Amino acid sequence: MGTKNIKLYGFGVVGQGFQDYLAKNENAERLHTIIVKNDSKQRKAVPSIIETTNEKTVLDKDMDVVVELISSAKEAYGLVAENLEIGKRVISANKKLIAENLADLIQLEKENNGTFLYEGAVCGSIPIIRVLNDLFANESINAVKGIFNGSSNYILSKLFNEEVSYNDALLEAQKLGFAEADPTSDVGGFDALYKLIIITAHAFGKILKPEQVLNIGIEGISKQDVEFAKQHGLKIKLIAKAELVGHQLTLSVLPTLISANNDLFTVENEFNGVVVEGKDIGSQFYKGKGAGSLPTGSVIYSDLKAIDRGYQYNYKKLANENYLVNNTNVISVILSTKDTYSLQDIEDEFVSLYPLDIYGKQFIGKISLENLAAIKFNLQKEKISILALENDNLIDELTLASVKEEVLV
Amino acid sequence: MGTKNIKLYGFGVVGQGFQDYLAKNENAERLHTIIVKNDSKQRKAVPSIIETTNEKTVLDKDMDVVVELISSAKEAYGLVAENLEIGKRVISANKKLIAENLADLIQLEKENNGTFLYEGAVCGSIPIIRVLNDLFANESINAVKGIFNGSSNYILSKLFNEEVSYNDALLEAQKLGFAEADPTSDVGGFDALYKLIIITAHAFGKILKPEQVLNIGIEGISKQDVEFAKQHGLKIKLIAKAELVGHQLTLSVLPTLISANNDLFTVENEFNGVVVEGKDIGSQFYKGKGAGSLPTGSVIYSDLKAIDRGYQYNYKKLANENYLVNNTNVISVILSTKDTYSLQDIEDEFVSLYPLDIYGKQFIGKISLENLAAIKFNLQKEKISILALENDNLIDELTLASVKEEVLV
Repeated sequence: MGTKNIKLYGFGVVGQGFQDYLAKNENAERLHTIIVKNDSKQRKAVPSIIETTNEKTVLDKDMDVVVELISSAKEAYGLVAENLEIGKRVISANKKLIAENLADLIQLEKENNGTFLYEGAVCGSIPIIRVLNDLFANESINAVKGIFNGSSNYILSKLFNEEVSYNDALLEAQKLGFAEADPTSDVGGFDALYKLIIITAHAFGKILKPEQVLNIGIEGISKQDVEFAKQHGLKIKLIAKAELVGHQLTLSVLPTLISANNDLFTVENEFNGVVVEGKDIGSQFYKGKGAGSLPTGSVIYSDLKAIDRGYQYNYKKLANENYLVNNTNVISVILSTKDTYSLQDIEDEFVSLYPLDIYGKQFIGKISLENLAAIKFNLQKEKISILALENDNLIDELTLASVKEEVLV
Repeated sequence: MGTKNIKLYGFGVVGQGFQDYLAKNENAERLHTIIVKNDSKQRKAVPSIIETTNEKTVLDKDMDVVVELISSAKEAYGLVAENLEIGKRVISANKKLIAENLADLIQLEKENNGTFLYEGAVCGSIPIIRVLNDLFANESINAVKGIFNGSSNYILSKLFNEEVSYNDALLEAQKLGFAEADPTSDVGGFDALYKLIIITAHAFGKILKPEQVLNIGIEGISKQDVEFAKQHGLKIKLIAKAELVGHQLTLSVLPTLISANNDLFTVENEFNGVVVEGKDIGSQFYKGKGAGSLPTGSVIYSDLKAIDRGYQYNYKKLANENYLVNNTNVISVILSTKDTYSLQDIEDEFVSLYPLDIYGKQFIGKISLENLAAIKFNLQKEKISILALENDNLIDELTLASVKEEVLV
C-alpha cells in the first residue's frame, strides 16, 4: 500500500469514476498505469500515466492490483486469467466476462492464491455481492429478484412518466452514460442476465451459463403495453429473478407487470433494486444507483480497500449446496399482438390462453419457461409482446377489470 | 475455531435466536456457556450449558468470544469493558450500552487489541454498520435517516391500518417479541436515538452523547393525528435523522409526516428502513426486519463469522472528520392540542405559528430544535402533540388543503 501498485485497464465512464474516487481519497499516487486501446478518444482528462496497447497483456511483477474495466469480455478474459494465474489481486466490473467464466476464474483464484473481486459488476452502487457473501452466507435463501439494469429501467421510467418514444429514451440513457457501449446488452436483458448469474452463484451456490436462462428484454414493449399497465395502476419493470420452486432453482429475466405494493415499484430511472428473501432473516430490500461514473467507481474503490485488508469472497454455498435447475414451471403472462395471424405459430406452446379484449389482440395466458424460451424468436419486436405477471394474484384483478370494460363497451 | 470458545450472556429473544442460528450452522458446539441472571424464567429450551450468576463477571481465559445480549446497559458495561481490557473479542447488541459508552469502548478495544462488533444493535437484520463502515468509509455523507425502531413502527402500522387503540397495538408488539423489555425506550424514541448515535459515529465520525440529541416518541400521537395524516395521503413514522446542514451536523428523533414518494413510506410493521445520502454515490435505501429472534440472531452470527476472519471496524471518519453540532436549525411542525390553554406556555418558543383549522386546535409552525427540546416536557401525552414535516414542500400542500376545507365549511 502507498506504493504505485495499481494497473487500470480501460478508461471509460467507470474507469474515470474510479480514478476520480481514488484521487479524492488521497490514493491517486497508487495508480501506476492506465492502459487504453485507443487514445484518440475524447476524454475529460488524459493523465500522463496513460499508455496505449494493442499487444498482449503485459505482466508486471511490481504491481499487485489489476483493475479491469474494459468493454470486451473476450479481451478481459485474457488479462484477468493471466493475472490470477500469477496470484495477482484482480478487480473487474465486467459482468459478461464473469457470468460466462465464473467457475474457471474462481478455480484460477484458488489454485494460485490470487484474489478476484467484482462488486462493481452487479447493481452499481448496491453492495449486493458483499451482502450475499457475508451477511447471507449462512442463510437459506428462497428468492433474489430485482431490477439489475439501470439503462433499461431509465428507459421504462421515461416511457411511463413522459411522452417520449422508445428510441428517444434510449438515446438519452446513452447520452447520460447509463447505457453500456452496446445497447442490445441492456435492452435485450443480457446485462441483467449476467448479473443474475453472478448473484445466483453467491445466493444459491449454483453457477449457471447465461444460455441456460431465458432472458426477454424491453425492446418489444409497445405504447399499448405502457397504457395497459397505467390503466391498472401497474408498472412494467425488467425483473431478473432466481427462486426456489419446490427445492429446484428457477431463473428468468422478463419484462414484468408489478403492483404498487412491490418494493421494486419505487425503483425509477438509473436506480437498481434487489429483494432478497431469506428463510430465517425474512425479506430485505436494497435500492441504489445502478449506473454512473462515480457510483460505480466508488464501489470499485471499496473492492480495492477490501483487497488491502485481505478480503476474499468465501463462496460458502458453492461448496455446500447443489440445486437442480427447473425450467418447466408455468408462469402467467399478458400477450399482446398487432394482428391475430402472428399468434398461429405459437399458441400451441401455451397451457392456456384467454382473450382479454374483444378485438382478439390481448390475451392472458399460462406458459412454461422452456416453452417461452422456445418461442422467444417468434416474439418479433413489431408483432408480439410478452409481459410476465409478478404473481398470480394479478390474474383475477386484470380479468375482472377486462370484464368490466366489456360490460361498459 | 471449532473449539468451545463462546460465552453467551443473556438468553432472551435475541440470545435464543443466536443460539438457534449457531445450531443450524453446525456451530452449536462452539457455545461453551450461557449465563443468565434468573433461570426460573420460562424458556423454549434450557440447554444444559446454562449457568446462573449474580456474581461479578467471571473472566475465562479459554474463551475468546463473548456475546453480550443482556438487557441492563449498566451490567453490560462491566462485562464488555472487562473483557475488552484483556483483549477478548466481544459482540454486543446492547444499543444503550454502546450509545452511552462508545468512545470508552473503542479506546479499550484499541489499547488492548480486542475486537468489538455490534451489528445486531442497530436496525436488526439490516447490515447498516457494516455498509457504513466498509462501503461508505470513503464517501462524504450528507444524511442518514430512517425508521430504526421496529416496535414503535409496528404500533404506528397498526394505528394506520386497523381500528385498534394505542395500548392494544403496544401489547401486541410486546407479545410478538418486537418490543424491548421496557416499552418506554421504544415508544419514547430512546431506542431509535441510541441507534442514531451509533450510526452517526460511523457515518460522520462524530460520537455524541444521547442527551445532546432531541428525541420525541410516539406516545403523544392521537387518533386525530392519524386521521389528519390519512386525509392528506401521508403517514406518521418515527424518523431518526442525522444530516449536514451548512457543514454542521444536526440530529433528531421525531414523529414525522411523510409522503408516498419517500422510501420510508413503504416501511411497515416490525421492519426498519435506512436512507443514506452520499455526495458521490447518491441515495441508497435499505429495508429489512428490525426486530425478532432469528433476524437479529442471524446478524449476531454474522458478527461471529466476521470475528473468525479477523474483521474489525475501521472508524475511519472518527480520525478524519470533526463536525460541529448545531441545534439551532428551524424545522416545520404540525402542533395539535385538545385545548387552546395548553398553548400559552409554549407559543413564544415558536418562530411562527399559524392555525390550520377554524377551531384553534391545529397549527402549522416553525421552531428550532433547541426550543423544541426546551418544551419537550410540556408536550404532555394528553394535551399536545408535535409532528415534524419531512420537508418544507409539505407546508404548501397542507396549508392549501386546509384553506379548501374552510371554504367547503
